[in-house]
Amino acid sequence: MTTRTTSRLTTKGRATRDRIVATASTLMLERGVARTTIEDIQHAAQVSASQLYHYFRDKNALVMAVIDHQTDQVLGVQHQGLDQLDSFAALRKWRDLVVGILKEVNCVGGCPLGSLASDLAETDPLARARLAKSFALWEELLRAGLAAMRERGELRAEADTDDLALAMLSAVQGGLLLSQVRRETRPLEVAMDSMLDHIRTYAG
Amino acid sequence: MTTRTTSRLTTKGRATRDRIVATASTLMLERGVARTTIEDIQHAAQVSASQLYHYFRDKNALVMAVIDHQTDQVLGVQHQGLDQLDSFAALRKWRDLVVGILKEVNCVGGCPLGSLASDLAETDPLARARLAKSFALWEELLRAGLAAMRERGELRAEADTDDLALAMLSAVQGGLLLSQVRRETRPLEVAMDSMLDHIRTYAG
Repeated sequence: MTTRTTSRLTTKGRATRDRIVATASTLMLERGVARTTIEDIQHAAQVSASQLYHYFRDKNALVMAVIDHQTDQVLGVQHQGLDQLDSFAALRKWRDLVVGILKEVNCVGGCPLGSLASDLAETDPLARARLAKSFALWEELLRAGLAAMRERGELRAEADTDDLALAMLSAVQGGLLLSQVRRETRPLEVAMDSMLDHIRTYAG
Repeated sequence: MTTRTTSRLTTKGRATRDRIVATASTLMLERGVARTTIEDIQHAAQVSASQLYHYFRDKNALVMAVIDHQTDQVLGVQHQGLDQLDSFAALRKWRDLVVGILKEVNCVGGCPLGSLASDLAETDPLARARLAKSFALWEELLRAGLAAMRERGELRAEADTDDLALAMLSAVQGGLLLSQVRRETRPLEVAMDSMLDHIRTYAG
């Protein structure tokens, strides 16, 4: 997701903007959006107020850019795992990728999109709508992968890939949240493995 | 979960304390913890600063009371649905109960415990530990219900009720989050129904 503003920037301008967004992302995910002030971001990104306001008219604009940034990050990883999805082995490899990332960060932070969604859903309707779109893109990657498996005969024709994709995304989100709370990977592992077992009942 | 303080209060004192906690819960779940000030709570609960500080030494103490309050509320409902869990029909009735509550609130707010967990996990280690305990109680209700089904022969002996309970709780949490983002019950329904199908593969 690239905003129209970005395309008009010079290389240096774009680098400054990217640094502001990356810094805002880190702070907002560590502390929550409300606990992060424009001043905190300015200070951490080492930019002046006028520089920051040159790129973002207010905190809301920055929140939207953070959502886009995190969507790019999360979907980037998910593309890695899901673009070649055509077998149960590939599905299992994707599961290991997601669990592996959680292990690397010691179960800290939860899913960036899930955290932003929970933080903003009731206070910022535009952010909620934007995050709904991000989740829809992720779900579509899963759906397309499962549909590819069905076309190859790995899944039977009656497998509802819409439902399976949505159920798997829910399991991933719930598993990540419980893993964040417990600081252990088991919730995510058990949630994903159970959903994989469920998908396997449709094996062709 | 009742704190030691509560038991020493007069009836009137307890009513005031309860009103403060209920008000704080509503505000913190609507806006998030960081967006809710002590002054907001004071004003909404119509108590003076000295009254509020008589019951809670600081905002942290109030956050802990809100976690306990929401734990009581959520587990109260879950007891309703899970205490008699001894058949697939009862499990389905519990599913309808959870989906029905979500419908009543038009998918607004998500799970109170999930929202508090996402809000506080990275900024308040004590709150995170307390919420981990709340989720463990919920998971135990599910586990006990599934174990009762296994004892009656509704589930086969090899059914791992620990894993099934944790997977179902993850599905509920992820489904509630996605339903909150989309303002529709479908994510929760599909997530729970898929996990019910998975549990049914262990039918005795």
